[in-house]
Amino acid sequence: MTDVSETIKSRTSANHYDPARKLSDEALAQLIELATCAPSAFNAQNWKFVAVRSDEAQTRLLPLAYNQPKVLDAAVTFIVCGTLQPHLALPGALQPAVDVGILDEATFNGWVGAANGMYKDNATLQRDEAVRSAAMAAMTLMLAAQGKGMVSYPMIGFDAVGVADAFALQANEIPVMLLTVGYAAAANWPQKPRKDVAQVLSFA
Amino acid sequence: MTDVSETIKSRTSANHYDPARKLSDEALAQLIELATCAPSAFNAQNWKFVAVRSDEAQTRLLPLAYNQPKVLDAAVTFIVCGTLQPHLALPGALQPAVDVGILDEATFNGWVGAANGMYKDNATLQRDEAVRSAAMAAMTLMLAAQGKGMVSYPMIGFDAVGVADAFALQANEIPVMLLTVGYAAAANWPQKPRKDVAQVLSFA
Repeated sequence: MTDVSETIKSRTSANHYDPARKLSDEALAQLIELATCAPSAFNAQNWKFVAVRSDEAQTRLLPLAYNQPKVLDAAVTFIVCGTLQPHLALPGALQPAVDVGILDEATFNGWVGAANGMYKDNATLQRDEAVRSAAMAAMTLMLAAQGKGMVSYPMIGFDAVGVADAFALQANEIPVMLLTVGYAAAANWPQKPRKDVAQVLSFA
Repeated sequence: MTDVSETIKSRTSANHYDPARKLSDEALAQLIELATCAPSAFNAQNWKFVAVRSDEAQTRLLPLAYNQPKVLDAAVTFIVCGTLQPHLALPGALQPAVDVGILDEATFNGWVGAANGMYKDNATLQRDEAVRSAAMAAMTLMLAAQGKGMVSYPMIGFDAVGVADAFALQANEIPVMLLTVGYAAAANWPQKPRKDVAQVLSFA
């Protein structure tokens, strides 16, 4: 058991994976269950995940990820997607919170109305929300994996159009990140130095 | 000490804070130090944080956050910003990784060149990167706070232009989220139900 602060400090972006160590579909599902504990605006859960873990699919993904070997060596590469038009699916996403008595009917209606007003005609906000939700889920997934003794690497260098085509993403699904997860091989980098807090934090 | 999986499962978006419990500037800096352990593309660390914690600043922020009382009651509301044009500041952000011997000169030059090529003429990618990096840092901050016995609430409902003006953000600083952090009062919601994993995960 590792304290979350220690997990945060020890997480690195790991380039090298033990290709012999795989993850079961159940283990991958457990990671996604944790990832989706992340928050999202209105609890819209506007995300989707494709677990690329078969030899065939990894080979399909490789050139689209600019031939980065970790796509073959890691147990899985998740295509982490955010979805556009979150207002359309919001009633379905929120209904369980009504059913268990967390949200009352007035709050439910207020949120659905607010989301429609905010997103409907605002393509920039829809894209921001897709990136924001997917990034929070991906971050949660990285820390969950680290806590289970795995390592990960988030990648933004890939052919987004090619990935969408090769993995039959829906038109509203934006691939926000590729995320390798698996067990570390030797020679991974330590966590790279960060700016001093004083450079990035001000007080008001 | 709490396992990260337990922290992830127990984190909630908390509306109600004990207004009597404050956080020292040092405690706020420790949270930001952990938040900035999050990854960012090329380790650009393209984020900034404003800790709104004085009575005057909280009152200034309140109407811009549509009068959500938690802005006054929480110990702090972080204005979590992502920054545009990450390629311009990248050499400075990466130099410490060269200095400690993690990145060699060729990798440093390769990354700086790649970042210039990717971001320079691509406003959408710059904005995506600002949102993505800020969201990952914010998620890390939420889990760090939860692990320290605090609660948090990420907010996208605020007047972004007004916040930028009232807190003198630079032109390249995009307020991606407001994030309240503090100690819980009574009557907060439990974590709202999530979709079944099978609804959001597919295998390839």
